Amino acid sequence: MASRIVLPEKDEGDILERCKSFMCSPITDVHVLQERKDEMSTRMEMLILETQAAFCKALEQVDGGSFKVDRWQRKEGGGGISCVLQDSKVFEKAGVNVSVVYGNLPEEAAKQMRSRGKVLKAKDGKLPFCAMGVSSVIHPKNPHIPTVHFNYRYFEIEEADGTKQWWFGGGTDLTPMYLNQEDAVHFHSTLKEACDKHHPQYYSDFKKWCDRYFFINHRNERRGIGGIFFDDLDSPNQEEVFAFVKSCARSVVPCYLPIVRKHVNDSFSPEEKAWQQLRRGRYVEFNLVYDRGTKFGLATPGSRIESILMSLPLTARWEYMHEPVKGTKEAELMEVLRQPKDWI
Amino acid sequence: MASRIVLPEKDEGDILERCKSFMCSPITDVHVLQERKDEMSTRMEMLILETQAAFCKALEQVDGGSFKVDRWQRKEGGGGISCVLQDSKVFEKAGVNVSVVYGNLPEEAAKQMRSRGKVLKAKDGKLPFCAMGVSSVIHPKNPHIPTVHFNYRYFEIEEADGTKQWWFGGGTDLTPMYLNQEDAVHFHSTLKEACDKHHPQYYSDFKKWCDRYFFINHRNERRGIGGIFFDDLDSPNQEEVFAFVKSCARSVVPCYLPIVRKHVNDSFSPEEKAWQQLRRGRYVEFNLVYDRGTKFGLATPGSRIESILMSLPLTARWEYMHEPVKGTKEAELMEVLRQPKDWI
Repeated sequence: MASRIVLPEKDEGDILERCKSFMCSPITDVHVLQERKDEMSTRMEMLILETQAAFCKALEQVDGGSFKVDRWQRKEGGGGISCVLQDSKVFEKAGVNVSVVYGNLPEEAAKQMRSRGKVLKAKDGKLPFCAMGVSSVIHPKNPHIPTVHFNYRYFEIEEADGTKQWWFGGGTDLTPMYLNQEDAVHFHSTLKEACDKHHPQYYSDFKKWCDRYFFINHRNERRGIGGIFFDDLDSPNQEEVFAFVKSCARSVVPCYLPIVRKHVNDSFSPEEKAWQQLRRGRYVEFNLVYDRGTKFGLATPGSRIESILMSLPLTARWEYMHEPVKGTKEAELMEVLRQPKDWI
Repeated sequence: MASRIVLPEKDEGDILERCKSFMCSPITDVHVLQERKDEMSTRMEMLILETQAAFCKALEQVDGGSFKVDRWQRKEGGGGISCVLQDSKVFEKAGVNVSVVYGNLPEEAAKQMRSRGKVLKAKDGKLPFCAMGVSSVIHPKNPHIPTVHFNYRYFEIEEADGTKQWWFGGGTDLTPMYLNQEDAVHFHSTLKEACDKHHPQYYSDFKKWCDRYFFINHRNERRGIGGIFFDDLDSPNQEEVFAFVKSCARSVVPCYLPIVRKHVNDSFSPEEKAWQQLRRGRYVEFNLVYDRGTKFGLATPGSRIESILMSLPLTARWEYMHEPVKGTKEAELMEVLRQPKDWI
């Protein structure tokens, strides 16, 4: 890759002070977080909780409603905080979920990772791991406000010799029901800006990765108009990757909220609402058939199903042989889902 | 297995005469069917077309609407006839599909079969195959009319030495939104009667297989109250298995239509309709995450996606953390989905 721009890490401030703004107390005990405040697992847990709170509050402000906050524990270790706003004024279903789980990696998960090329040396058949992330899907009521999804995650595995393997993954992507050029450019530019601070190739590489990942193979179309997506990011070093992930996580509100505010009072027809419902059906197809995170979650014993399937819309529709008429706004969207374009 | 009751094969009649009752002309040319009238592939194609027509006509009679009939061809060989009745008087979405496909078995399909224990010896890496079946899912509007699904299929593979491997599979199962003891007993008794003509163990074995197959693992619940399910049936001989499959296929109308007629004028509340929509969500989860036929179809190049996903309901719903209140009719259904029972 080309030359790299390194930024000094901004001070992350006092743990107790930062916790006050969260939707709920952290998953890990606050005293443990304070003791280990310089460890990456602590810094990432603080970042995902901060991202959850900032996004939920921004959505509450525009909606007028309040998120229901569920704190849950995982028997095998760790837990999470699920925030949901359902059938509210602006949002049909808005879910923002944080989880911090640890224990020994289930065999199925190790297999999936090895199939991606990871070399994992187990000690007595065990691989202690820690995984955490923030993930969110927002389905608005108005078909002129797009659906958004983001996820930022961190993974640590302890190998037989005691060394730790770690990597980050994540992304933010937009799923409009109607194409709006200005929205698309705003969304992608905001992501590009976050990426460009860290590496000149990041936006271009991760935009392409996003178009490849969110592909509904059996429909030969993408789920939406993309954004960025990356996984297994572990270079040049932990500090720089974390700084990049932080920039991405902090770009979520500026990526999406201006688009919500712009369209919140747009009028729409029953036909436009019906089209949104059909597109929601495709969203369900992608998430249940292809999404790696969903499939992994559904197959993992002890995972919290309601938090995984929070990503599904409140309502969806499937019509036999529906095909938009040429020249309509619906057909315009399909074209860009079949042939992704560069927005900037 | 215990003693076996062999019935003489009933005369199947003149090909041309039988074709007159079909929804559409057969997939295979009628002259070819006439020439090969004693071959199993011909007899099965006639049976599935006859089953499709009988079921569609019975549904049309109760609904008042007419099925849309689509005949389609598969580039790689064969084709199908898809019959759909959508957003009609009684039915929200009713799909009855027949397909007859042949060619060389795709590697992915061979892998899936070998993982089930099949030994397949390819000739120059090729396995000529022929697969055919009738399958149907009926989603009624009234939440007091259950959803039904059935599928009867036949498979032939030619091995390196020219010998043919063949087997039958199939089943019929019911998915009510509200439990009705009488309906459940009628449905299962009708299936048992069809099974008992052929083997005293069939109903009991295939009822259990059905409960195991239609299991939504991540929800720890079954899709419905079962019925029968079997696969890889190839003994004691082709004639007897075909006679059994024929009895099953001919039991579809008597299994389901009396239940439809009984409830077609039942009144229902908006709450009952909302519960139906949530159960439809679970139907989508099973079909997209677990159903072998759907997964196989979506992964097979050249398959007709709209005919595979015809099984999805017109509308579905997902509510975060929905749980029926104890003692309600909704909770009563959940109990039997979590713990299947014997109906007869």
